[in-house]
Amino acid sequence: MIDPVIRRAGLNDGPVLWAILAPVIRAGETYALPRDMGADAALDYWLSAEKQTFIAERDGIALGTYYLRPNQPGGGAHVANAGFMTTPAARGQGIARAMARDALARARAAGYRAMQFNFVIATNAGAIALWESLGFRTLCRLPLAFDHPHAGLVDALVMFQEL
Amino acid sequence: MIDPVIRRAGLNDGPVLWAILAPVIRAGETYALPRDMGADAALDYWLSAEKQTFIAERDGIALGTYYLRPNQPGGGAHVANAGFMTTPAARGQGIARAMARDALARARAAGYRAMQFNFVIATNAGAIALWESLGFRTLCRLPLAFDHPHAGLVDALVMFQEL
Repeated sequence: MIDPVIRRAGLNDGPVLWAILAPVIRAGETYALPRDMGADAALDYWLSAEKQTFIAERDGIALGTYYLRPNQPGGGAHVANAGFMTTPAARGQGIARAMARDALARARAAGYRAMQFNFVIATNAGAIALWESLGFRTLCRLPLAFDHPHAGLVDALVMFQEL
Repeated sequence: MIDPVIRRAGLNDGPVLWAILAPVIRAGETYALPRDMGADAALDYWLSAEKQTFIAERDGIALGTYYLRPNQPGGGAHVANAGFMTTPAARGQGIARAMARDALARARAAGYRAMQFNFVIATNAGAIALWESLGFRTLCRLPLAFDHPHAGLVDALVMFQEL
């Protein structure tokens, strides 16, 4: 599989990003975001000031996006956090893995000491397997912390790795 | 000990709140916030739209403040989060305990299913003992997730209780 090209998102990428974010937000199965969130609010969130936001493309077509940010400000800013979304059409093509490797490399280069995911939905088996394959471990499960639109109340995982 | 009066913070409470927040933020020992954070940014954070903010007073003197909010939006909004600060002069007078009991009661009344603290600094023994006495348990420790100004890198705790 040819790795996608990963570039910083720019000011004109709103429509491209929203096309990726909208199906994920509307499905409500993997992110704790309001399912009826509008484009402006979603882009404000995904491009907020503390985040660096990236787009993964193949042949000029955006297939995924991720952000990298400090998980906490102040005394917690040496631990990174990241969030990833791919287009439905791009699932299973290694886009998320390529983005995660890119995020880990950038986090290391930026001097982060660790990366933490705060809220990995327990039903999201593909993501959990991917994060484990990249070195993340589960620190704990948050009991019934996520209301899944089909599965009901399910756990969320805190995942972590030192860099 | 007479319980403090706890009331919603209003539009004119900025100076009162900042007097409580400033020493905690400047000390940098218990909150992952920038130690040089200005009053406007601190008040924007403590009074942000998703939070309900309260002030604990005795004889009309503000001794502490707390906020209550959904810990996550969307599918995570049934779990509450709260943050507490007391004035240095009011430590050891049961202000934090009274505020935490108030927060738990309000969270129950509002229909929250649980309350989670995301980042309790491991060196903050008084807070941890208080939360445990009120029914919180530690779900996991985040390894070296907080850079304490005197102790260096220390763990942070994820604490949780069902309501």
